[in-house]
Amino acid sequence: MQRTLVKDTVGKVGEEVTVKGWVHVRRDHGKLIFIDLRDRSGLLQVVFIPSVSEEAHTVATELRSEYVVEITGKVNARPERLVNPKIVTGTVELEAHAVKILAKAEPLPFDMGGEELNLELPTLLDHRALTLRHPKVQAIFKVQAVIIDAFREFLKQHDFMEFQAPSIVPATAEGGAEVFQVDYFGQKAFLTQSPQLYKQIVMTAFERVFSVNKIFRAEPSVTTRHLTEVVSLDAEMSFIESWEEVRDMAQEVVRFILQRVEKECSKELELFKTTVPVMLEKTPTYSLREVQEKIFTHSGRDTRGDKDLNPEDEREICGIVKDETGSDFVFVYGYPTKKKPFYVYPNPEDPEYNEGMDLLCRGIEWLSGGRRINDYGQLMEHVKEWKMDPKKVSMFLEAFKYGVPPEGGFAFGAERITMQVLGLQNIREASLFPRDMERIDERLSTLSDEKSPKK
Amino acid sequence: MQRTLVKDTVGKVGEEVTVKGWVHVRRDHGKLIFIDLRDRSGLLQVVFIPSVSEEAHTVATELRSEYVVEITGKVNARPERLVNPKIVTGTVELEAHAVKILAKAEPLPFDMGGEELNLELPTLLDHRALTLRHPKVQAIFKVQAVIIDAFREFLKQHDFMEFQAPSIVPATAEGGAEVFQVDYFGQKAFLTQSPQLYKQIVMTAFERVFSVNKIFRAEPSVTTRHLTEVVSLDAEMSFIESWEEVRDMAQEVVRFILQRVEKECSKELELFKTTVPVMLEKTPTYSLREVQEKIFTHSGRDTRGDKDLNPEDEREICGIVKDETGSDFVFVYGYPTKKKPFYVYPNPEDPEYNEGMDLLCRGIEWLSGGRRINDYGQLMEHVKEWKMDPKKVSMFLEAFKYGVPPEGGFAFGAERITMQVLGLQNIREASLFPRDMERIDERLSTLSDEKSPKK
Repeated sequence: MQRTLVKDTVGKVGEEVTVKGWVHVRRDHGKLIFIDLRDRSGLLQVVFIPSVSEEAHTVATELRSEYVVEITGKVNARPERLVNPKIVTGTVELEAHAVKILAKAEPLPFDMGGEELNLELPTLLDHRALTLRHPKVQAIFKVQAVIIDAFREFLKQHDFMEFQAPSIVPATAEGGAEVFQVDYFGQKAFLTQSPQLYKQIVMTAFERVFSVNKIFRAEPSVTTRHLTEVVSLDAEMSFIESWEEVRDMAQEVVRFILQRVEKECSKELELFKTTVPVMLEKTPTYSLREVQEKIFTHSGRDTRGDKDLNPEDEREICGIVKDETGSDFVFVYGYPTKKKPFYVYPNPEDPEYNEGMDLLCRGIEWLSGGRRINDYGQLMEHVKEWKMDPKKVSMFLEAFKYGVPPEGGFAFGAERITMQVLGLQNIREASLFPRDMERIDERLSTLSDEKSPKK
Repeated sequence: MQRTLVKDTVGKVGEEVTVKGWVHVRRDHGKLIFIDLRDRSGLLQVVFIPSVSEEAHTVATELRSEYVVEITGKVNARPERLVNPKIVTGTVELEAHAVKILAKAEPLPFDMGGEELNLELPTLLDHRALTLRHPKVQAIFKVQAVIIDAFREFLKQHDFMEFQAPSIVPATAEGGAEVFQVDYFGQKAFLTQSPQLYKQIVMTAFERVFSVNKIFRAEPSVTTRHLTEVVSLDAEMSFIESWEEVRDMAQEVVRFILQRVEKECSKELELFKTTVPVMLEKTPTYSLREVQEKIFTHSGRDTRGDKDLNPEDEREICGIVKDETGSDFVFVYGYPTKKKPFYVYPNPEDPEYNEGMDLLCRGIEWLSGGRRINDYGQLMEHVKEWKMDPKKVSMFLEAFKYGVPPEGGFAFGAERITMQVLGLQNIREASLFPRDMERIDERLSTLSDEKSPKK
């Protein structure tokens, strides 16, 4: 008999179906045996009754967590008082007539049957191959897949072309110490920290481009917000009239992502007892100096003159804007030109400050972007003032030599947005295989016999 | 006035529009000046007539290739004898009333105005930032974007979940010398050669998964088919009954890709004077041994007993199958078990041969895959027989310890498919920023002052 996905049993009351999946938990109630069967679509309660099938019941006594089984049986409606609103199949249960074991499992190192998976993070990650089977862990990556897909879908609708940015790069325009070095046939190469310069190059040919690519940061610190390898969602657009067009495009892509998550991931949001943040028709937008004034007025904390927002400022301005307008989001623009990368566009009327911007939400930065310099002469001046070696950005500079329209773009990290949307405590939870200073799958301390020679 | 994309002028005969783009070529015909204006949607002929606008005509005398301009004017239908079927706007031209220069360009190092960009490959790549502007080069990456998007779309329709595979890996199960080493905070790490083991891990939790991720091969050779960094399109599916289900899924994803390319990239296929390959309802499928028999019968060349197909065999069997059936595609399965990776499923009735498969087309391999071992005991036996260190695949093995249904999957490279669909001579043309032994953007010989210390 053809396989029925667990979620589709709801529409098949009274019918005989075959389901396939994993034994999520087994419960013995006297002579009755219950299992929660898990497949990619959800959980289903299955009951084995000796008087219905002695044979199936006997096999069921053998079943343990994570056994893979094929079960044929009849879908019964549950009496109202036994309906379980927490699972998609809560209105039905399957009365097993036959069961076949497709694969056995060894005893689990910890209980996986609860609604919560109460493990310390290191244990969760040490056993990533197993913990990925828990419904609440799976929810994170279902939401992440929707976030990434929505990013692409919105930009495709707006005529952006997808491109593939390189990972191995010859030199780093922006980076300093925080870059990974690769032995490239005996020469030095690096892992990209950002597709920034490549996306600008591709934009000069295709006008509107986006990419979903890995970036790498060798930050020698362990925080709850940083990974060494993350998925960067990048977009760049030309023929703009002002930086506000870039802001508006960023706002709409975030809005679209949140709408799709809300629509397609309601069960997942419920598991995390959260809702998507509130975005107004027009997101409040303030310059850095306006933000600093607002913070001073609000709490008396004087950050005026600071070159950037620190984490406390980010939390405070988000709180102020939320109270004043109801918006969970706020755009901050106009950072000191000299404190930012060479390609950021200085405000022509106030060139000490630039037309770079950040989007903050619930106390932290979600997205960065802004207008970039498109004039070759101005770019070359910046290269000089920033004391950069033009040879290290020669391909980038060539792109701008030959006529580039006004342009800008933005970028954000898929793991960070996933973390923020679900309210996770640690970004490691939002990466299938998180890499940091202390771990690449395994904890690095256990791999230390492979230490490379000191340089 | 709001910008009109070049392709949309066709529907606006008689109207005044504003277009923006690059000067692709300028032609002076006596007092008349013609330019081909290029934007992301195509080319448009613009004519500057002194009697219509002296001012616009004067500016037009200044225009050179790759200047960025904004032009307002009237869309006129072309007389039938002047219709140009080669461009999307061939039925119209724009009579310029006003023109504004948005950005100037330096003189080009070579002519970019022809239908073909007749450059040697090294020159094409040395000036990648500029050559990406040529319509025929752009066509390659438009097709590539459609290929990748179609791959994802088909698998999403079939309930596969997208996941992000890691790039930095602790050890390589499959690799030997051809792996790039990364200095990871003083320890050795590597760049992934394949998401194979990760996609199998993720499959054990999510049943059906796919990924679009970079893979890296440190092959110390320079061929027309190999890059050191490529985009791998990977899928893995469980609860299969036989390897043929994997074959059929691979066939249908390729069919879907070709259909979308045919539909959305007809102009691009025309530029390359090519059509998509022919795929029958059921692609001819032969075992390795059957293929060797067919080759022997066909040409007398005796490869029977060889452990794999060599490039000549691939070309020959594709030719034979094309002649016999009309199919450009052929599946070959059943390779010697011991010659393939440890995870490939041996045919239970003939365990010396496995249930791995390749899809060949027009003489070369497009895709590889097959059924994998899902039983933990069998997998552990193979680990031993293949003389692998189980510690190096411990996360993978843990996934299989806890119950895994029968499964399989497949993978192929986006650049290789792009190259094959368009009939390109060299895979470097199908990568925006191709990396090989001799080049990372710049030729490495010019970067040799950065050589790392010998090990």
